[in-house]
Amino acid sequence: MVVVMKPEATPVETAAVINRAEAVGVATHPIYGKEHTVIALVGDLTKIDRDVFSAMAGVQKTVRIQEPYKLAARSTHANRTTIDVNGVIIGGSDVVVMAGPCSVESREQVLETAWAVKEAGATILRGGAFKPRTSPYSFQGMGEAGLKILAEAREQTGLPVITEVMTVETVDMVCEYADILQIGARNMQNYGLLHAVGKARKPVMLKRGISGEIKELLMCAEYILSGGNAQVMLCERGIRTYETSTRNTFDLNAVPVLHRMSHLPVVADPSHGTGDWELVGPMSKAAVAAGADALILEVHPNPEQAESDGAQSLKPENFAELMGQLRLIASAVGRSIATSPEPAPANGRAQDVMLV
Amino acid sequence: MVVVMKPEATPVETAAVINRAEAVGVATHPIYGKEHTVIALVGDLTKIDRDVFSAMAGVQKTVRIQEPYKLAARSTHANRTTIDVNGVIIGGSDVVVMAGPCSVESREQVLETAWAVKEAGATILRGGAFKPRTSPYSFQGMGEAGLKILAEAREQTGLPVITEVMTVETVDMVCEYADILQIGARNMQNYGLLHAVGKARKPVMLKRGISGEIKELLMCAEYILSGGNAQVMLCERGIRTYETSTRNTFDLNAVPVLHRMSHLPVVADPSHGTGDWELVGPMSKAAVAAGADALILEVHPNPEQAESDGAQSLKPENFAELMGQLRLIASAVGRSIATSPEPAPANGRAQDVMLV
Amino acid sequence: MVVVMKPEATPVETAAVINRAEAVGVATHPIYGKEHTVIALVGDLTKIDRDVFSAMAGVQKTVRIQEPYKLAARSTHANRTTIDVNGVIIGGSDVVVMAGPCSVESREQVLETAWAVKEAGATILRGGAFKPRTSPYSFQGMGEAGLKILAEAREQTGLPVITEVMTVETVDMVCEYADILQIGARNMQNYGLLHAVGKARKPVMLKRGISGEIKELLMCAEYILSGGNAQVMLCERGIRTYETSTRNTFDLNAVPVLHRMSHLPVVADPSHGTGDWELVGPMSKAAVAAGADALILEVHPNPEQAESDGAQSLKPENFAELMGQLRLIASAVGRSIATSPEPAPANGRAQDVMLV
Amino acid sequence: MVVVMKPEATPVETAAVINRAEAVGVATHPIYGKEHTVIALVGDLTKIDRDVFSAMAGVQKTVRIQEPYKLAARSTHANRTTIDVNGVIIGGSDVVVMAGPCSVESREQVLETAWAVKEAGATILRGGAFKPRTSPYSFQGMGEAGLKILAEAREQTGLPVITEVMTVETVDMVCEYADILQIGARNMQNYGLLHAVGKARKPVMLKRGISGEIKELLMCAEYILSGGNAQVMLCERGIRTYETSTRNTFDLNAVPVLHRMSHLPVVADPSHGTGDWELVGPMSKAAVAAGADALILEVHPNPEQAESDGAQSLKPENFAELMGQLRLIASAVGRSIATSPEPAPANGRAQDVMLV
Repeated sequence: MVVVMKPEATPVETAAVINRAEAVGVATHPIYGKEHTVIALVGDLTKIDRDVFSAMAGVQKTVRIQEPYKLAARSTHANRTTIDVNGVIIGGSDVVVMAGPCSVESREQVLETAWAVKEAGATILRGGAFKPRTSPYSFQGMGEAGLKILAEAREQTGLPVITEVMTVETVDMVCEYADILQIGARNMQNYGLLHAVGKARKPVMLKRGISGEIKELLMCAEYILSGGNAQVMLCERGIRTYETSTRNTFDLNAVPVLHRMSHLPVVADPSHGTGDWELVGPMSKAAVAAGADALILEVHPNPEQAESDGAQSLKPENFAELMGQLRLIASAVGRSIATSPEPAPANGRAQDVMLV
Repeated sequence: MVVVMKPEATPVETAAVINRAEAVGVATHPIYGKEHTVIALVGDLTKIDRDVFSAMAGVQKTVRIQEPYKLAARSTHANRTTIDVNGVIIGGSDVVVMAGPCSVESREQVLETAWAVKEAGATILRGGAFKPRTSPYSFQGMGEAGLKILAEAREQTGLPVITEVMTVETVDMVCEYADILQIGARNMQNYGLLHAVGKARKPVMLKRGISGEIKELLMCAEYILSGGNAQVMLCERGIRTYETSTRNTFDLNAVPVLHRMSHLPVVADPSHGTGDWELVGPMSKAAVAAGADALILEVHPNPEQAESDGAQSLKPENFAELMGQLRLIASAVGRSIATSPEPAPANGRAQDVMLV
Repeated sequence: MVVVMKPEATPVETAAVINRAEAVGVATHPIYGKEHTVIALVGDLTKIDRDVFSAMAGVQKTVRIQEPYKLAARSTHANRTTIDVNGVIIGGSDVVVMAGPCSVESREQVLETAWAVKEAGATILRGGAFKPRTSPYSFQGMGEAGLKILAEAREQTGLPVITEVMTVETVDMVCEYADILQIGARNMQNYGLLHAVGKARKPVMLKRGISGEIKELLMCAEYILSGGNAQVMLCERGIRTYETSTRNTFDLNAVPVLHRMSHLPVVADPSHGTGDWELVGPMSKAAVAAGADALILEVHPNPEQAESDGAQSLKPENFAELMGQLRLIASAVGRSIATSPEPAPANGRAQDVMLV
Repeated sequence: MVVVMKPEATPVETAAVINRAEAVGVATHPIYGKEHTVIALVGDLTKIDRDVFSAMAGVQKTVRIQEPYKLAARSTHANRTTIDVNGVIIGGSDVVVMAGPCSVESREQVLETAWAVKEAGATILRGGAFKPRTSPYSFQGMGEAGLKILAEAREQTGLPVITEVMTVETVDMVCEYADILQIGARNMQNYGLLHAVGKARKPVMLKRGISGEIKELLMCAEYILSGGNAQVMLCERGIRTYETSTRNTFDLNAVPVLHRMSHLPVVADPSHGTGDWELVGPMSKAAVAAGADALILEVHPNPEQAESDGAQSLKPENFAELMGQLRLIASAVGRSIATSPEPAPANGRAQDVMLV
């Protein structure tokens, strides 16, 4: 850290900063410029809050040199992290596509969609049983009944399941049914929840909050990693800016930035990122071109009837077409779209689902 | 709601929108413009998600006419809500000042601060026992031990206590000790928590998230109100913008905007809003001038030693000076700074506290 | 400046940075931390662009210690700047109120408004003859004819005139008629124009761009100051954020921040800042409470007929009422609202104006 | 347009709105909801400012249905616009790459770079002779001498030249030397300049301002188009958000959004968009995948010596490598990277340039 003193700071104030740092075993290197004195601090700064110096008399500002996360930082890990989800590898050379409905609405809807996305080439099934909704009057999700439907879809199709966990008290329940725990954007900084999934033995996909800085996302990953769970992937899903022609501003720059700053796999969510199904195609291709390790996409057999997020859901036929295009883009950047590690169960698509 | 069709929308697509709306008992008024057909929907739209129409073929956009919150809206309440906290009235003609440390760090620190802010004229004591911290390596708060210290400070000084509740499972515990439950900015959209405090029988101060829109803040208040708790106050505490010369952009405009949109009392938090104690004075005065019903301010006997937020904490002497200035501003807008409904307990400031 | 090397930077790369700095006579102080080497640069850095170091191999980032503006900085001026506009002092102990219509639309409209705001206590008349309009199909201003009307209004009422100059080639013309040159928000970084008004012998009010950082505003002031014009005042008029319930986010924090960073007077423009006349009252009071040296307010005799910005214009009667409230707030912060240095010309409000 | 009345609006206020609209020949369709009356306006609204209604008593808000630009709108043009720049087609099936230094610094630097980017496959040369710089103390560009160097580079290499024009008075001079006029981000809303290039007979590349909304960008294009110049291309170059890990937030979503809203070609500028050469590669590939019609990239033979923007400039060897990757991506989306319409002049790369 570097502490910049005000031009009018007194030698006594400068000395106080130096003493405060040295009191916790941090070495100090004062540099006397023409206008400012600057004090470089070298050593273990975890014992002292940066704010302590900001609050001292004569201090103009403090500048962090080293990022406060360690476990998530690329510099401390020689190799990129890969996460094995029932044989599907996230963060490796292949690009993984996760797809499915925003919300679990019924057994038929989920099974129909699961088969459709599997047939088009997705290798992980997404779907929400607990829904954070802006309005208390909106559909709030099916809860455990929804989780059971997802588990049945996995049994039938062989696709591992990713689903959101929203509260500490449901972490255990969701772990029973899910293969990946999703932490939603609104909960990026829900530290109690981060702590709880840090203790879980399931991979976690952590979504960037709509006003989350990239370094804050990494600090939140650090919460999970420091809890003992090393299977964390990071997800860009759109940030809030002044632009209103898209629901959010899908910040694709985060993909190469995160790859530079961290060893964790990076997932892109163009469905929430743009909020608009017509944009999902171009931005999915862009995400693969920019190096995303996985995509998570909303697909609904009948978006106009969806309980939530219909406007950003692809129809199965559009999704299948997009998968073909993604294979070409992946190949252009020297990767492939991941394929299922094992064939679907022999019995195939159930009869009752065909009727939907 | 108004549904705007694309210029190229077909009559069949327009008819589908009309049928969808009428199927749930909503009346439709199509208007045929030169380029666009526009369909006005009149009736109870709570039965159908706005997204349903956005997802329909031929629809360009939907425009909400009526805000989706009702209980929080000013139009549905003839009178402004006032909240009585042990005799201190928030939302009435007087401006209430809440003050105290960011975090509860020790019994001595809290008692010292409580007496200091009381003597300067504050009528509610603030202090955090559970702290949401960006870094997993930072001080996380004293928990229940901290709540007990706050309760002791209330007993000694007579000041009601406001403190943050962060998780559903600690709502009951916090209710035992606190007089006002604070929902922090990071939890503005933690719907499980909003639901839980909606069931509590304590006033709630709901903070705007750093990327929370004003209408989202009102929707979150609606969650609490619709749960049965009518004692909700709204708090502006700074939003995230591109400007970095202040920690956040304290959006004082929210004060008159919220007063126009809602009947709920509005609290301003210039300490978090600006993140800089030198700005707390001018922005506190501005907040009272703009019509805030209450201020919540961080005061610490020794900001340089604070476990958190030292840079934004006032020293007791600065706070006392500010209180004098606030009385003048309050008077200039035809209000007063609220005074304690009852004198402090006869025994006064305890001897052991004086020594700190 | 501080140059932070990457953890993996080689000694050769570090040496290259040191050599590059020393080549332009800047002293270097390398500090070898556990993970990073940091090089503090001391000396005259104006000879070398910060980007030069950012582009060098092995460099992670550069951190500026000293702000790149000097003439605008408070640290280099013992006293606050005051600006005398025909006897009206801006930046002194009194708060100046400038008022008038957004656009000059007709002689009658301007004279009517000028008399009205003068009678209510304004001491400077505002009005735009050149209008930057988002649409090429909107009213673009009256041009020189409008300037002549403003000059006539000054003659009649004695109020000095502030008006916007939009292009280099009209600077001389506007100087002929105006007492203060306004640089609008869209032109904050129009360097050619800043250079031109830097050569003018008239006071300049520089508005912050809607995405202007406070330090950028000061850099733009530096352009004018370094051109030889020391009579610069800074104006906050709202920034662009994600919040849409106000047209802009009026960033009142800029007032105390600018006072801390600069010696130049600070003007607040709540009319453009909020874009909503109902918010102008509370935010004007807040601006005076926060320490603004002047307000600039839009007043129109008939906002519903205004060619531009009707929604944010006060009616004369609302303006007069607000002036009374502002006097109370100014007094509460130890200031007064400035009064005219001399009485209005004896002939008073012209007959033909009364008829409008 | 739709005018939404306040719940408490009186019949007289509603009638006033209706009368105001009908007075300019606009048809009105009032709809009486349970809480709000809503008035749909149908007809030519260019005769009346939207603000007129916002300012009327009883009006809560106005909602625009039809966008206020016509010439730039996709709905009014059956075919996409293509622009022919000396045989290089922008907006057609091929993706055009423009490349060159940020600033013209010397004849050698420009010629060296021009040959290098041509050899790697670029078909248009970029370079700035007039530089808008944040600091008055920074390098401000070579002016006309720089334009002459660019013209010489065109002669030698056959590459058409794009360069920025910053002021009305230099439009003619820049037209003499340049093949495409660039309007920089800071001048997006410099209406005088837009008007001037609207009269020019050269293609214009209009950059989105760092706080420009997409619909504002289209309104600015409308200024140029309505002036008579139909050869306009739009350029995304990064917007200002709260995220600081990139210099700007390169908003790639703008590419498909602009293609949906407009018939004009779309250019992506990942160099300014990200401000970081390491991100230029991934984001260039992403831009082509998202459908950009052209890229504009900064290349400098020695970024560490660049007068400006060194941190975001590619070295020629990195650029050449990237061009290979871009060809693969273009092919994956069914396009090619444009090649030069004619071979380079027979004499080839001049001897003196080889020596640099």
